[in-house]
Amino acid sequence: MSDRYLNLVNSPVGSAVAARVGLPQPSVLRRYEAGAPILPGPVLLGSTSPKPAAGLRKAVEATGAEVLDLAGEGVKVAAAVLDARSVSAPGDLARLREFLQPATKALAANGRVLVLGTPADGADITADATRQALDGIVRSLAKELRRGATANLLWVQDEASLPAALRFFLSGRSAYVDGQPVLLGAGTAPAPADWTQPLAGKTALVTGAARGIGAAIAGVLARDGAKVICADLTQAGEALAKVANRVGGTALHLDVAAPEASATLLEHLAAQTAGLDVLVHNAGITRDKLMANMKPEQWDSVIAVNLQSQLSINAALLDSDQLNQQARVVCLSSTTGLSGNRGQTNYGATKSGVIGLVRASAAAFAAHGDSTINAVAPGFIDTEMTAKMPFATREVARRLSSLQQAGLPVDVAEGVAWLASPGAGGVNGQVLRVCGQNLVGA
Amino acid sequence: MSDRYLNLVNSPVGSAVAARVGLPQPSVLRRYEAGAPILPGPVLLGSTSPKPAAGLRKAVEATGAEVLDLAGEGVKVAAAVLDARSVSAPGDLARLREFLQPATKALAANGRVLVLGTPADGADITADATRQALDGIVRSLAKELRRGATANLLWVQDEASLPAALRFFLSGRSAYVDGQPVLLGAGTAPAPADWTQPLAGKTALVTGAARGIGAAIAGVLARDGAKVICADLTQAGEALAKVANRVGGTALHLDVAAPEASATLLEHLAAQTAGLDVLVHNAGITRDKLMANMKPEQWDSVIAVNLQSQLSINAALLDSDQLNQQARVVCLSSTTGLSGNRGQTNYGATKSGVIGLVRASAAAFAAHGDSTINAVAPGFIDTEMTAKMPFATREVARRLSSLQQAGLPVDVAEGVAWLASPGAGGVNGQVLRVCGQNLVGA
Repeated sequence: MSDRYLNLVNSPVGSAVAARVGLPQPSVLRRYEAGAPILPGPVLLGSTSPKPAAGLRKAVEATGAEVLDLAGEGVKVAAAVLDARSVSAPGDLARLREFLQPATKALAANGRVLVLGTPADGADITADATRQALDGIVRSLAKELRRGATANLLWVQDEASLPAALRFFLSGRSAYVDGQPVLLGAGTAPAPADWTQPLAGKTALVTGAARGIGAAIAGVLARDGAKVICADLTQAGEALAKVANRVGGTALHLDVAAPEASATLLEHLAAQTAGLDVLVHNAGITRDKLMANMKPEQWDSVIAVNLQSQLSINAALLDSDQLNQQARVVCLSSTTGLSGNRGQTNYGATKSGVIGLVRASAAAFAAHGDSTINAVAPGFIDTEMTAKMPFATREVARRLSSLQQAGLPVDVAEGVAWLASPGAGGVNGQVLRVCGQNLVGA
Repeated sequence: MSDRYLNLVNSPVGSAVAARVGLPQPSVLRRYEAGAPILPGPVLLGSTSPKPAAGLRKAVEATGAEVLDLAGEGVKVAAAVLDARSVSAPGDLARLREFLQPATKALAANGRVLVLGTPADGADITADATRQALDGIVRSLAKELRRGATANLLWVQDEASLPAALRFFLSGRSAYVDGQPVLLGAGTAPAPADWTQPLAGKTALVTGAARGIGAAIAGVLARDGAKVICADLTQAGEALAKVANRVGGTALHLDVAAPEASATLLEHLAAQTAGLDVLVHNAGITRDKLMANMKPEQWDSVIAVNLQSQLSINAALLDSDQLNQQARVVCLSSTTGLSGNRGQTNYGATKSGVIGLVRASAAAFAAHGDSTINAVAPGFIDTEMTAKMPFATREVARRLSSLQQAGLPVDVAEGVAWLASPGAGGVNGQVLRVCGQNLVGA
């Protein structure tokens, strides 16, 4: 399961050999560490406007990083943040080159490029076309950056969620998020008393929590301060109990596809908690088969567990008095839901379905006391499941992304934790890829 | 420039060797031939509803193909069309497996799978989530099909454009379109007097027509009955004249990035034609460079030619009396505009910008007598430009799609011609990928 190739090319001899013969050279990514600063170095801050927004500078400074206006000779920066919200005609795009060309050169290993744009609003054709150009710039740049550096794009409709978004995208929490646009809309997004404990006082429930990505999500939500109810099948009992103990949470035996699942869940919540703040629909199964050989039970079981269960539980929760105001629901999708995957028509159906679900449900959750619902779409993540893949298939899949490596379960968990946090209240009905800019098809 | 690998694996010996050692086996794709039927065999037609829509059956029969309701033992079908517009709950998706499992087995080489769905309408969460599942099914299936077969998805909001869409997606015209959803909305979409001459009586202008994809577009529009004005730089004079002569059209010297471009264009139209019906913004340049080394002139020239020119000419045409009612504007984008590409931040900016342009302009063109504006996004297309790529880079790029080969300029031209046709009036503000389901990143 450990990425021996990545370890090899990061050894002194392996690194020299890989460089000599032109092999991919994935970096060891910078990830969250308790107590470490959000950024290990200064931030280069620029703007396409002659009058830079004071609010953005303050928000960047609040992360604790030193802010530079110019990349000095020989200075390495940990991040380059460009406020490109003012572009409104193609000629304005030259400002992006002027900033990004030297910024790219000054970027340290595991650096962050973050561009802020204004989303299209239908008022002016030239302005909207120019704004959309940011997407092609950021995605192309993400494919150019090396040594663990990433580039992402924030469409800022409303600044309320900017502080939490900056803390996610500039820190090691977003290690495996690359080439990703996210819309920050209006929404209640309170700053937590302590940014290292954004989920303090919150109750979260994670389905499929006994292992893999689900266990990682339970761990990160607990690290961020939540009281976590770890739910999984009865037969996962021992593993589930271990996870629950490790994260200081409780265990709940729950088959999300059972007819009584919602009732079991609501009863548990009524007895145990002051209402639910965070729900993570992580439980999911695969029954991979080419369509030509797909059996009814392989199809039906995947649809029931991965899609129908999320719909049923959400409806029951919204109908109950157990879902708190400003709740956060995060649904696990997949890059397969965006681009399809060979042998996964059943799984792809459910993971596209989940994307349809969060888009269609956003208004209903917003109406429930400014709650939100979003999806996280992991790409190729190293888990027990991928450890069973044939060696060559796994090796190729690991390199087919801009970061040239698989993600870890904790990378998905960090994405979930950001969307689950109070400060992400302006993000609703969206899909966050955690895929290292996976090459899976547009 | 010819694909020697494709030729090799389609020879008797090469085919056996490739199969033995597990190499990719791209097929020779079925493309448009004058006089050939739209489909070379029967169509298997199914529905997720117990009451199949009679209109769809008539529209499929009108293509001249025999329609089958069941795949008989040993019968090969040229296409499988599934009306999945009725699905409204996850359990309904089982109907897709029931139809597609045997249909996939019965599909002939170069076969077509076409699924019709109802687009999300915000009325019901469960229905919208279920509908979106079709996307994951079709994209996954497209990755499974072999021997030149494709799978695509029509979101049918309005049936007006269905006849023209069926003729495109079921025929050899869509050879290199795969894993692609298209929305058929409301719009004036008259059936032509003769479906083999849908552009009869229309005047079309193609920029960058002197060579490559532009020359192919001019050829296909002329084949479909249009009078074509072939526009290109003065220095392309001789090549341009040859193309114009070949397609029975006229030549216009036009530098789309020059300040006087719009005036030159409008003068020419006023003197020569009864107004313009079809405009294809094909002129474009590349100045590839990593951002770290990008020079101002490399950036600025690409922005001016590929994006600013389209905005300026569109605005001038809409302001003039030279653009006819029910006009069709088709803008060349690229999969780089969807997913980015290493070394192409400038080109990616413009190709994303074009996507923003068509989305933002759709309403203005609809208001101009039911005109439309759409983008075509080619993937890896074999041209003089790609012939200059290093051998290994080109070979890898050619195989990184579901069809395991590069497209031809004519494939892009066919996509343009469909969007340019009167019958495509319900398609507006959209992006048609012609990329063989290229693996470029979500």
